[in-house]
Amino acid sequence: MFENIIKFITNYIPLTDEEIDIIRETNLIESYKKNTILLSEGEVAKECYFILQGCIRSYYVIDGEERTTEFYTESQPITPVSYVTKQPSEYYLSCLEDCVVSLGTRNQILLEKLPKLETLLLKLNGEMLVQNQVSFDNFKNFSPEKRYLDLIETRPELINRVPQYHLATYLGITPVSLSRMRKRLSSGKSARKA
Amino acid sequence: MFENIIKFITNYIPLTDEEIDIIRETNLIESYKKNTILLSEGEVAKECYFILQGCIRSYYVIDGEERTTEFYTESQPITPVSYVTKQPSEYYLSCLEDCVVSLGTRNQILLEKLPKLETLLLKLNGEMLVQNQVSFDNFKNFSPEKRYLDLIETRPELINRVPQYHLATYLGITPVSLSRMRKRLSSGKSARKA
Repeated sequence: MFENIIKFITNYIPLTDEEIDIIRETNLIESYKKNTILLSEGEVAKECYFILQGCIRSYYVIDGEERTTEFYTESQPITPVSYVTKQPSEYYLSCLEDCVVSLGTRNQILLEKLPKLETLLLKLNGEMLVQNQVSFDNFKNFSPEKRYLDLIETRPELINRVPQYHLATYLGITPVSLSRMRKRLSSGKSARKA
Repeated sequence: MFENIIKFITNYIPLTDEEIDIIRETNLIESYKKNTILLSEGEVAKECYFILQGCIRSYYVIDGEERTTEFYTESQPITPVSYVTKQPSEYYLSCLEDCVVSLGTRNQILLEKLPKLETLLLKLNGEMLVQNQVSFDNFKNFSPEKRYLDLIETRPELINRVPQYHLATYLGITPVSLSRMRKRLSSGKSARKA
């Protein structure tokens, strides 16, 4: 897992052997079992995460129903809104699988030792901003079927990795509609239209 | 306008008189007339913007229809997806009003002269990430009526500032539905439910 961190960072900026040692000594890594709730509604977030392995789901509970808003997987950072605003969270973060993550508070300690990592953070945040914008625009502009086809194209591993009922609320449809859509698409009657 | 830039920056980090002079000399500001298209579909974006005055609208053209995805106003940064990916843009950016902006490429020159501004950028990007996440989650979780009420609460100035037909596509409804909703709400029959 440590190698994954180094590999990820050196995709963006070069590191000397001394710098790699500093990162190793900071012990950024934490593991969580499947179904661990990392953040609950009403709680103020104390951590950010960067996923090394596993899948973390964010969801709201509205009228007793869970509505999934995101699936975070390998190499994705999670900055809870509540972590920035210091207000109680409106949503949950929960491990859909056993997870290995790098913790934001420890990254902060590392940042003080290695200020050059600020450049990496800036690039990462820029990428995240753009990814979020594309996702939001697509959600607005696409029909549920097009959203599903887009997901197959851009994150194919998710389809088999997460439960279908979570996938349905993520796409903004009911599990029954998703099931029907999958049948329709697999029987070849699909039309690739927005 | 220059004072607005300094005021904005010093909200985040302190500046010495020498640093203010460096910012002044860099000439960050540009003006655009109402209806200027800053970015077209198919074009690779060469600029980022930070709005000092005015309103810039982003929109897609789908089946000949404009669909507004965002209204950017004072103190909001705009980083076009195409600027980061270097791929042709899928959407347009257009000035809804006469606009005064600070240009990203010139900010980049400034960043080389004043590297401490990286800290500001990091904070700004973090705030943008959180704002975008809240907007996206609300769009998914709220009904069109709740979206409209939320907009009145969070960005009341927009309601009278932008044309109703742009506001409608932004909310994901037709102009006729928006007009009906406004009538219903103003006649007091509204129910504040999600």
